[in-house]
Amino acid sequence: MKSAILSVGTELLFGQVTNTNTVYLSQKLNLMGIDVMYHSTVGDNPERAKHELRRLLEEVDLVITTGGLGPTQDDLTKEMAAEVMGVELVLDKEELKKLESFFIKLGREMTENNIKQVMLPVTDGFALPNNGGTAPGCVFEKNGKTVICLPGPPREMTAMFTESVVPYLYKKVDAVIFSRMIKTIGIGESQLENDLQPVINGQTDPTIATYAKEGESCVRVTSKRATEAEAVAAVDAMVEKIRGLVGQYIYSINDEELNQVVARKLIEKNLTISSAESCTGGLFASTLIGNDGISSSFERALVTYSNRAKEEELGVSRETLERFGAVSEETAVEMADGLRKVTGSDLCISVTGIAGPSGGTEEKPVGLVYICLNYKGEVDCREYRVRQLNRNWIRNYVVMLMLRMVYQKIK
Amino acid sequence: MKSAILSVGTELLFGQVTNTNTVYLSQKLNLMGIDVMYHSTVGDNPERAKHELRRLLEEVDLVITTGGLGPTQDDLTKEMAAEVMGVELVLDKEELKKLESFFIKLGREMTENNIKQVMLPVTDGFALPNNGGTAPGCVFEKNGKTVICLPGPPREMTAMFTESVVPYLYKKVDAVIFSRMIKTIGIGESQLENDLQPVINGQTDPTIATYAKEGESCVRVTSKRATEAEAVAAVDAMVEKIRGLVGQYIYSINDEELNQVVARKLIEKNLTISSAESCTGGLFASTLIGNDGISSSFERALVTYSNRAKEEELGVSRETLERFGAVSEETAVEMADGLRKVTGSDLCISVTGIAGPSGGTEEKPVGLVYICLNYKGEVDCREYRVRQLNRNWIRNYVVMLMLRMVYQKIK
Repeated sequence: MKSAILSVGTELLFGQVTNTNTVYLSQKLNLMGIDVMYHSTVGDNPERAKHELRRLLEEVDLVITTGGLGPTQDDLTKEMAAEVMGVELVLDKEELKKLESFFIKLGREMTENNIKQVMLPVTDGFALPNNGGTAPGCVFEKNGKTVICLPGPPREMTAMFTESVVPYLYKKVDAVIFSRMIKTIGIGESQLENDLQPVINGQTDPTIATYAKEGESCVRVTSKRATEAEAVAAVDAMVEKIRGLVGQYIYSINDEELNQVVARKLIEKNLTISSAESCTGGLFASTLIGNDGISSSFERALVTYSNRAKEEELGVSRETLERFGAVSEETAVEMADGLRKVTGSDLCISVTGIAGPSGGTEEKPVGLVYICLNYKGEVDCREYRVRQLNRNWIRNYVVMLMLRMVYQKIK
Repeated sequence: MKSAILSVGTELLFGQVTNTNTVYLSQKLNLMGIDVMYHSTVGDNPERAKHELRRLLEEVDLVITTGGLGPTQDDLTKEMAAEVMGVELVLDKEELKKLESFFIKLGREMTENNIKQVMLPVTDGFALPNNGGTAPGCVFEKNGKTVICLPGPPREMTAMFTESVVPYLYKKVDAVIFSRMIKTIGIGESQLENDLQPVINGQTDPTIATYAKEGESCVRVTSKRATEAEAVAAVDAMVEKIRGLVGQYIYSINDEELNQVVARKLIEKNLTISSAESCTGGLFASTLIGNDGISSSFERALVTYSNRAKEEELGVSRETLERFGAVSEETAVEMADGLRKVTGSDLCISVTGIAGPSGGTEEKPVGLVYICLNYKGEVDCREYRVRQLNRNWIRNYVVMLMLRMVYQKIK
């Protein structure tokens, strides 16, 4: 089955919001063996939206729309889809009751513009309940074409998709696509594609595609078979061949983020970790702590943003700070050493640097950073000069460098 | 001038990457008075990509493509665009020299697949240098249509756009669009639209549109005029009318994030702040520290993830932890009080809760959180029961609640 995703909303064309809905839906549809051929975004303009929906339905049999189900004047997706599909919308009394009690519970008045949220198809279609918000979605089915209208807010959309759309679509599919994302560090995309030529050439299923992300290169291996078991087996066999060619660069074949892999290994190997951050301001701790179960490994972190905090929390000597400065190898080493005295963790990692845009000098420019990893007393301190892009890009990149150092120490 | 953005890349249709390029380009194009009518995404398939480009060029005069400029087999955007536009690509010797020295500097071999990156138009078009990566972009101009091919990696794309595309486009535009995003907290989208009816009805320029984001509702006010000054004046006059109607809910008219507004006010009012975080794991500190200049206000943060850390760093009594538990009002109050003793900050904020998915009980479920704000000794502690969505959603939502408490205290 071929599908397309149509996102409706002028705020998207203004660049006011990032479209994460297409990411989610594309992943989920592919997992069910439904090919996604197009993503398309139109504004809150009924004529252009209808035109776009008609065009997509000429090329695919399933279109999923997001956005435009709310109570305001701009919300017109259902009306537009109903017209294109030639299906009538009627007032759904059950959904109206739910909507009324939602407003009563909130202690707010239900303004009249909310009524259109409960105009839904009953023949050639049906309503999809919204358990995470107020606007129901719906399905239109006619003449071999299907249009599914989902809410725009991602949380509501994903809940409705999981609860109602997945069971509905599973009845319609006849093949399964399985895909693995292999993630690497330390090799560029063109070299990676070059090294994988022995398996890429002439390969039709599984397909192999490389691409570049910030600081890493990835390989996507995809197979489409009659059953999930066959697709998984085909992909896994290819992944083993790829390991044989570039295995030393691979850190995950399960599309995990580096922080997830590091968290998992720390927990598995019963290693404790703590951090003392300056310029990254808690981002390293926050990133690792995003992983459930981390409490057995990560029990404390310090954000010693000022010199005074470095002295008081970590015992960094004033003489070191005055002589070498806060951003120096000497300070980074004392921070990690002080952290070890305070926490006793197996891994004590410190970072001090200049994230900018202010604070840089000719001698110590923006992007200069020292990361020190003290592993059971064994000290490894490195200096980096990161690209002077912007404050948050630098902080995120430095956290990635810290995760890399930890990964390479514990793998 | 009407435009469309065409993103090329099968990884997008698989949902492997989030398309931030369309967000950036949409914002920038709108600022220059160029209407964005469509976003479209196609896979690395030359036939479908050509078909889509041809279709878009029937409706708009400018198409910006992203992706597909690299060295691999899947990279075919320039070739596809050249064919649609009827323009020849030739080997650019200057760009070839740059590419060769890039590989020499890296100490890597330049594999042959890299050559196609320097096949570029010279008549009916020109190359755009890539100072952030290896693949040059290009412009095709013919028969009143323009196609601009930019790299996929966001950092390279935005640099090329700023350096080369903006000056080029500014010569072509004849009107300016100016837009303000008004951000509110404490009012739902349907109520907001209802309260704004006096200014929305029959309004053609500036246009006013509301929409909902997680936890907040926003209003976009947009004007298109002959000059930037006229557009700004029209928008600002409308913003004042909107203030008159819903001013008490507005926290920003400059499209700032709540953390930016809070950081700015803390610095302006010379207030110091420190934080003691448990479940949020450093995310609150990290969020505020993302703002340059924060060092005058935020000098220290503690992530006291374990009970032991709460006792040792903040002096929370073991009796309190054993009697009421780590996640309790009593513990939150002692954390903030202990923080005040350690740092002496004007604002001392603590948070303790259960981010999940594990760790919840019937009595203390996932989503239960206590936030305590100790403002110069004046204590305000609140209990929240946040939706049990997922760990990182909960952590982010709690940080937003913390920022809101700080904002309401200092505004």
